[in-house]
Amino acid sequence: MTLKPQLRRAIGVFDSGVGGLTVLQALRRRMPHRDFVYLGDTARVPYGRKPPEMVVEFAGGIARFLCEMGLDGLVVACNTASAVALPGLAESCPVPVWGVIDPGVETATRVTRSGSVGVIGTKATIASGAYQRRLEARGLRVWAQACPMLVHLVEEGLADSPEAELLARHYLSGHPEIDTLVLGCTHYPLLRNVLQRVAGKGVKLVDSAEVTAECVEATLGTPPACFVQGRVLHFVTGDPLAFAHTARVLGGVDGEIEPLPLRELARNPQANRRTAGISD
Amino acid sequence: MTLKPQLRRAIGVFDSGVGGLTVLQALRRRMPHRDFVYLGDTARVPYGRKPPEMVVEFAGGIARFLCEMGLDGLVVACNTASAVALPGLAESCPVPVWGVIDPGVETATRVTRSGSVGVIGTKATIASGAYQRRLEARGLRVWAQACPMLVHLVEEGLADSPEAELLARHYLSGHPEIDTLVLGCTHYPLLRNVLQRVAGKGVKLVDSAEVTAECVEATLGTPPACFVQGRVLHFVTGDPLAFAHTARVLGGVDGEIEPLPLRELARNPQANRRTAGISD
Repeated sequence: MTLKPQLRRAIGVFDSGVGGLTVLQALRRRMPHRDFVYLGDTARVPYGRKPPEMVVEFAGGIARFLCEMGLDGLVVACNTASAVALPGLAESCPVPVWGVIDPGVETATRVTRSGSVGVIGTKATIASGAYQRRLEARGLRVWAQACPMLVHLVEEGLADSPEAELLARHYLSGHPEIDTLVLGCTHYPLLRNVLQRVAGKGVKLVDSAEVTAECVEATLGTPPACFVQGRVLHFVTGDPLAFAHTARVLGGVDGEIEPLPLRELARNPQANRRTAGISD
Repeated sequence: MTLKPQLRRAIGVFDSGVGGLTVLQALRRRMPHRDFVYLGDTARVPYGRKPPEMVVEFAGGIARFLCEMGLDGLVVACNTASAVALPGLAESCPVPVWGVIDPGVETATRVTRSGSVGVIGTKATIASGAYQRRLEARGLRVWAQACPMLVHLVEEGLADSPEAELLARHYLSGHPEIDTLVLGCTHYPLLRNVLQRVAGKGVKLVDSAEVTAECVEATLGTPPACFVQGRVLHFVTGDPLAFAHTARVLGGVDGEIEPLPLRELARNPQANRRTAGISD
């Protein structure tokens, strides 16, 4: 067991893989003095094509593991998990929990003028109807499109490539007159250029990572004694080296990466499991 | 520790993930009475976009783990690992080791009439030049194309979809007059229909899984007392449930799936690590 740096009043951020790093980066830009704990469940990525009950199970174990660290708050930086697991997590966690869906919905509602809004995401996110129900409840007309291949474009380092252009045109070709497009997946900000070009200049893109960070900051505010740069500890269930490598397409990892055995995320972990050195 | 079924004279098969299951299935069709041990390194998948030295390191640990079981032979059912790690493995393993590249090359050499052959694979496989050098050494003209998005099509269950058609046309559009196309990735047999349609009827597709199984059978032959159906034990470094789920697009898993902690694959594992119940 390595000795962890003492993190103070950290915010937990989790995702199925590297995608949530875009949310972590947005949070750190707004709250540079905060400490963060990031958990990437890379041994079980991607969540987007797994059954909802499996994702609920994974998210429950991860939230329990992170909450036992005594965090200030928890960000579910994964649209799939936000779509299917958030209500349960909000009930079971002792700290505020944010998903990435509601902030995107609120922003889209605020910025649309025509009332016609689009949303794109993984198969699971779109199939869950989580965005569509919320947007429709606000009186908006919604066009939703699953884009299962876009995450892979980003992770392959092909965000700016002929493949990206082809697939973006394919997925967006059927869209009706919308004036706002919610990027319902944490990888999509990396495709912003191609999506903006294909959707057309008149369409406003809503980046969930950015607006989620806004919400978290608005609630938690700035911690006292905020003159030193915050630190980040990353846990990954898969290989740390592979995580760091894939993360390069998203701007890289700034902080320690620690392997986390999956058994630590089981529903009933052994009582004697190690704990990270986090104080409040 | 669960008690393993006693496997007899098993053949080891490994891949970065589920793709090698197409090779396992081809092997089992030819040698239904053989026992097999499959290892899917799903905690570190995909290998195709990792640096070669990282893949060599992973493959070395896996081969050591499998060879210590006293197998009859080892199949590297992963083109990326075959391309970069095979020479080292052939030297260090005490049993015959097959990759999936040489069998594909031999078959292409045998079946081409025009002498113009194409090969498609992941970025790493094509960048390694492993197919191209071998085919050119046989006096063939070679057209090679990296197709980084095709694996994802298969794993997303989109092997027969508009996305598959789009991407296959994109990747194959530049090919000159070839009469043979080597499918240099274990996932590609699932895309056979769309690739055949796009490449044209006159192009023969070489399925590495199938021809590798032929080679292994030719060397090892049929074990004695071959009247019972062979068994398969699967080790996965990521989540067994997630492995089984993804494997469904490749025809599913037939046999036990056992989680394997990554530390068991380290270069210098603890001397007291458990061993599976395999006899020779």
